[in-house]
Amino acid sequence: MKHDKVMNVAKKRGFLWSSFEIYAGVAGFYDYGPLGAILKNSIINKWREYYVVREGFYEIESPTVMPEEALKASGHVEHFTDPMTECKECLEVYRADHIIEEIIKRDVESLSNEELTAIISDEKICCPKCGGHLTRVWNYNLMFQTLIGAKGKKTGYMRPETAQGIFIPFKRLLRFFRGKLPFGVVQIGKAYRNEISPRQGVIRLREFTQAEAEIFVDPRNKSHERFSEIQNKILKLYPAEIQMEEGGSIEISVKDALAKGTVSSEAIIYQLYLAQKFLKELGIPTDVIRFRQHLPTEMAHYAIDCWDVEVKTEKYGWVEIIGIADRTDFDLKSHAEHSNEDLRVFIEYDKPKQIKKLAVKPNMGKFGPSFKADAPEILKKLKDIDGRDVKQAIENKGVFKIEIGDKTFNLTPEHVNFEEIEETVRGEKIFPHVIEPSYGIDRIVYSVLLHTFDFDAENEREYFKLPADIAPVEVSVFPLVNKDGLSEIALKIRDDLRNNGFIAEFDASGTIGRRYARADEIGVPFALTVDHNSLEDNKVTIRNRDNLKQKRIPISNISAIIEDLIKFRIEFEDIE
Amino acid sequence: MKHDKVMNVAKKRGFLWSSFEIYAGVAGFYDYGPLGAILKNSIINKWREYYVVREGFYEIESPTVMPEEALKASGHVEHFTDPMTECKECLEVYRADHIIEEIIKRDVESLSNEELTAIISDEKICCPKCGGHLTRVWNYNLMFQTLIGAKGKKTGYMRPETAQGIFIPFKRLLRFFRGKLPFGVVQIGKAYRNEISPRQGVIRLREFTQAEAEIFVDPRNKSHERFSEIQNKILKLYPAEIQMEEGGSIEISVKDALAKGTVSSEAIIYQLYLAQKFLKELGIPTDVIRFRQHLPTEMAHYAIDCWDVEVKTEKYGWVEIIGIADRTDFDLKSHAEHSNEDLRVFIEYDKPKQIKKLAVKPNMGKFGPSFKADAPEILKKLKDIDGRDVKQAIENKGVFKIEIGDKTFNLTPEHVNFEEIEETVRGEKIFPHVIEPSYGIDRIVYSVLLHTFDFDAENEREYFKLPADIAPVEVSVFPLVNKDGLSEIALKIRDDLRNNGFIAEFDASGTIGRRYARADEIGVPFALTVDHNSLEDNKVTIRNRDNLKQKRIPISNISAIIEDLIKFRIEFEDIE
Repeated sequence: MKHDKVMNVAKKRGFLWSSFEIYAGVAGFYDYGPLGAILKNSIINKWREYYVVREGFYEIESPTVMPEEALKASGHVEHFTDPMTECKECLEVYRADHIIEEIIKRDVESLSNEELTAIISDEKICCPKCGGHLTRVWNYNLMFQTLIGAKGKKTGYMRPETAQGIFIPFKRLLRFFRGKLPFGVVQIGKAYRNEISPRQGVIRLREFTQAEAEIFVDPRNKSHERFSEIQNKILKLYPAEIQMEEGGSIEISVKDALAKGTVSSEAIIYQLYLAQKFLKELGIPTDVIRFRQHLPTEMAHYAIDCWDVEVKTEKYGWVEIIGIADRTDFDLKSHAEHSNEDLRVFIEYDKPKQIKKLAVKPNMGKFGPSFKADAPEILKKLKDIDGRDVKQAIENKGVFKIEIGDKTFNLTPEHVNFEEIEETVRGEKIFPHVIEPSYGIDRIVYSVLLHTFDFDAENEREYFKLPADIAPVEVSVFPLVNKDGLSEIALKIRDDLRNNGFIAEFDASGTIGRRYARADEIGVPFALTVDHNSLEDNKVTIRNRDNLKQKRIPISNISAIIEDLIKFRIEFEDIE
Repeated sequence: MKHDKVMNVAKKRGFLWSSFEIYAGVAGFYDYGPLGAILKNSIINKWREYYVVREGFYEIESPTVMPEEALKASGHVEHFTDPMTECKECLEVYRADHIIEEIIKRDVESLSNEELTAIISDEKICCPKCGGHLTRVWNYNLMFQTLIGAKGKKTGYMRPETAQGIFIPFKRLLRFFRGKLPFGVVQIGKAYRNEISPRQGVIRLREFTQAEAEIFVDPRNKSHERFSEIQNKILKLYPAEIQMEEGGSIEISVKDALAKGTVSSEAIIYQLYLAQKFLKELGIPTDVIRFRQHLPTEMAHYAIDCWDVEVKTEKYGWVEIIGIADRTDFDLKSHAEHSNEDLRVFIEYDKPKQIKKLAVKPNMGKFGPSFKADAPEILKKLKDIDGRDVKQAIENKGVFKIEIGDKTFNLTPEHVNFEEIEETVRGEKIFPHVIEPSYGIDRIVYSVLLHTFDFDAENEREYFKLPADIAPVEVSVFPLVNKDGLSEIALKIRDDLRNNGFIAEFDASGTIGRRYARADEIGVPFALTVDHNSLEDNKVTIRNRDNLKQKRIPISNISAIIEDLIKFRIEFEDIE
C-alpha cells in the first residue's frame, strides 16, 4: 500500500515519526523531523502568502490555554464531545459510532447516544478485544483539562480550535480595523482534541496545527469583491442533496453553483476556489480533491453552510483536510451574552433615516428614590428598549420588568412618561457574520506526501515529486570525488546558497548515483555536481530531479539560477 | 515611565494586550495583536535565518503535551518547582523568595525552603494583603498537568521547555545526521510555566514562545569552526567572579575571555557573540545588553557553564532574554537510563587502536541450563563488561552479579572461561555534550518595542524606530486627497506591493499629516503619497520615517526600490 511506503520513507528519512518512541509512544502524537518541519513551515508560509499577504488579512496569536468561562460561552464545555462506550470486562474504551461502523458497516453519524446504545444491544456488538459486554453510550468531553495558577485553581482547557482566540478580543480587532466591515483575521497554531482512542496516524492527532481565517462580514452582504475573477472556474462539488440521493460529485462552474443555490454565498464559494488553488500549488492533483457539503443532520449547531474539502486516500478513504463554514453570528452573540460586552458593529446607512419613536422619559423624582444605586444601570438599559414595549406592558399589566444580572426591577406608571419623537438615525448596530476557512495543516502535509510520492519505472526511482518551492532541501551539492579540492568548491557553493537563503546540503559519501538516489527520495529538486572540469571552466552540472536532464551552469550564477527556478518558476529548459 | 507609554501604544495600536479581557483576564497570558504577531514572526524568521539557514542546523517540531515518564527522566517532575508560601488567613499565595526580596530587600536566590521559612519567621514577614501569618515554604511544581486519553488516564504535562522534544528522538536525529558529531537541532514553539502569581506582564508569562538550539558536540572537542572569524569581537561580560566581588561588567575580546578561562569553551562564546549580533540587528543597542554568568549556586543541576543574555529595562531592571548553557550529557544520559535505550554516539578514532583485552568466554554447556530464556540477554550484557572485573569478582567472591531489569543473575566459576586477546578497536561510544542557546521570544519582542521606542523632540513624534526588515507594516500608501482617481492609483500600488510579498497598507482618512503620524507611531519605515502630479509624471513621493526626507520615484519601480531598501539595506539617499 502506498501509504505504508510513504510513511516508511517519511520515518526513515526524517519527515515524520511517532513521538516519545523511547518511552513506548503515546497514541495521537507525532514529531515532525528535520525534513518534515521544513515542509510544514513551507506550507504554512504559503498559506500566509495566500491569506495574509494577498487577501490582506491580519494574523494574531492567542494562548493555547483558555479559561473555562470562554469555552462555556463557545459551547465547547457542553458540546465538544464524542459518544463513548467501555467494555465491562477488560475496561477498553471505544468511540461508540466508530465501533458500530466498523463491525456492522452502518453509517450512524448524528445518531443520539440512546440510539447508539440500542444498536449495540440489538446487534449484540461486543468488545472486539475480549468479547465482553459494552456499557451504555455517554458523552466524553474531548478537551484536555488543566488547572491554572496555585491559588483557587481555576479550571482551564487546551483550546479545541484557534478560532475562539479571534472572537474573544473582537472589540480590539474591530478597533484595529477602524470599525469597518468586512475584515479578516487569521490564526495559525496548535489545537487539541483528547481523542478516545486514536488509531489513524497523522489523520487523527491529539495535538494538531490549524490555520484558520475568520472573516467578519455584514450579514446582508456576503458578496466578494473578486467574484468576477473566479466566476468561470470549475469546482468538483458534492452537494448535500446529491449525497442524500446517493449520487456522485459534479463538476460545475462557480457562477452556476451560486445561481442554482448549491453554495450559499459568494463569500463561501470564493473560499472553496482559494482552497483548490492552494492545494494544487502544493502538488495535490485536482482529481483527488472534492468539496463535500455537510448534510443538514451533521452541520455544526453554529453554522448555516459547511463544506469539507476532502482528499482521496487509499487507506482512509476521503479525508477532510479543510473545512469552510458560514458560522453566522453564533460565536460573537454567545460571547457577548456570557461576557456582557457589546460585540456588535455599527453599520452606517447609506443615508440617515428619520424614524418616529416613542421615547421613554424617566421621572427622576420617583426613579432615584425607588432604585437608588441601581438607577444609572436601569436608565442605560432603558435606552436600548423600544418605548412601545414599555408602554404596552405598563398599560396592560401595570408594570414593566427589567432584568440586570440576577436582579429584576419593576417599572410602574409613576416612573416614566412617554413622548412621540422623530429621530435621525445614522445606522444600526449588528452582529457580523463569520466566514471561516479552517485548514488542518497536518492532514495537508500527509496528503502532500501521499500524492507527490511517485514511482518512476523507467529509472527505478521512488521519490517525492514535491513542488520546488516547498521541497525541504532545495539544492544538493556533490563533489564528483572527495579529492583534488572538489569538496572545498562544493562546500563553498553550499555556503553561498545558504547565505542567499536557500536550504542547501553537501553530500560526499557513496557513489554519485547513490547520492542522486538519496536526494531524489526526499524530493530535492536540483542537484549540483562539481567535477574536474569545474576547476577549468568554473562551471558545475545542474540536474533536474523530475526529467533527469542536465546542464552546465557558471558557478558565479548559481544563486540567481536557483532563484529563477524556485521562486520565479522558470522552466529548467530556459535557464542558462 | 517609558514602559507604560510603550505598553499603552502597544495595546492601542494592536501589538500586545492581556488575553481574555472580556472575561476579566487571566494573569500571565497575552495576545499578540495584528501588528505584534507580524513583529514576532519576523523575529522568529530572522532567528531561523541565523540558526537554520546560516548555521545549518535543522528544525524539528515535537508535541507540547508530554507523558510523565519523559519529564521524570528530565528531572522536571522533581525539580521544576518554585518555593511557595500561603497566607493562613486570606489564603493568598506567594513565591516565597519574591516576597522576601520585596519586603526586606535581601537576595535569597538559591536558599533552601527551610532557610526561607526561617527568614519569614525571623523577619516577621506577613501577608502583604491582610497581614496574616504565612505557612512554611514548600515546593510547588510549575508544570500544567493534564490527563491523556479516556482509558487509564495517563498523566501528562504541558512541556516546560522545547529542548526535551529534541533529546527524546535523539536516535532518529543521529541517524538523520548519519551518526556524525557535531550537529545542531532547533525547535521553536510554546512552553508553559504555571507561575504562582505572575505580576510582570509579558516578562513572566504562563505560556511563552521559546526558540532553542541543542548543539551536540564531542565532549573532548568544544571548539568552533568559525572561531577565528569572531575572536576579536568585543563582548560585555559580567562573570560570576566579578559578581561575587560586587564589581561591574567588563568589556573584553572573545579571544581574551577564552584565554583567561572566563568562558569555558569556543562553542559557548560563539553563541554569546551570535546572540549579541542577533539582538543588535533587531534594533536593541549594544549598550543595554550584557552577558551575566550564573553563580555556582544558581546554576542548573545539569549545566557546567551558563550565561544569561540580559537587557536593561527601566521597570524590571536587567532581564534575562536568552540563556546560553553547556548542559553536558545530563539529559541524554538520564533519558538513556529511564528508557533503557542506548543514546550514545560512536566516535571513530583517528586510527584504530590495538587493545589487549581479557575476553569472557561463556561455557555454553552450563550457561543454557542455568539461565534458560535469560541467557541471550546476559550474553549481550556481558559483551559490554570489562573481562577483568568479571575475573576479579569471581576470583575474590566466587560470584559476579549481573542486573537486568529487576532481576539479578549470579555468574559462578563454572559459567565462564577467560582468554587474553588482542583486539582492533575502531572507536568508542560516548554521550555527546549539549551546547544550548535558548531564546525567550516574548521577552525579546518586549525588549525590541522598549528599546526602539523613540521621542523625536524636534518633530514632536513618538514612534517605534523598528529596523525596516522587522517592521510589521513595511509600506503605507496614501492618496493626497480622496478624489480625482488618486485613491485608485494608491490602491493599485498597495496591491502590487502585496503581490510582491510586502505588507502594505492603504490609508485615506484624515489629513496627510495625521496619516504620517499614525504610520510613524507603529514604525512603518516608508510611506508613499500619490498626488495630482502622479497623474502626469507617473511618480510618487516616498518618505523615510527616520529622517523625514522625501524623494520622487517612478511608480513602475516601487517594488524594486522597496526591496532594495528593506532586503538589501540600500541607503535612502542612494535610491532613485
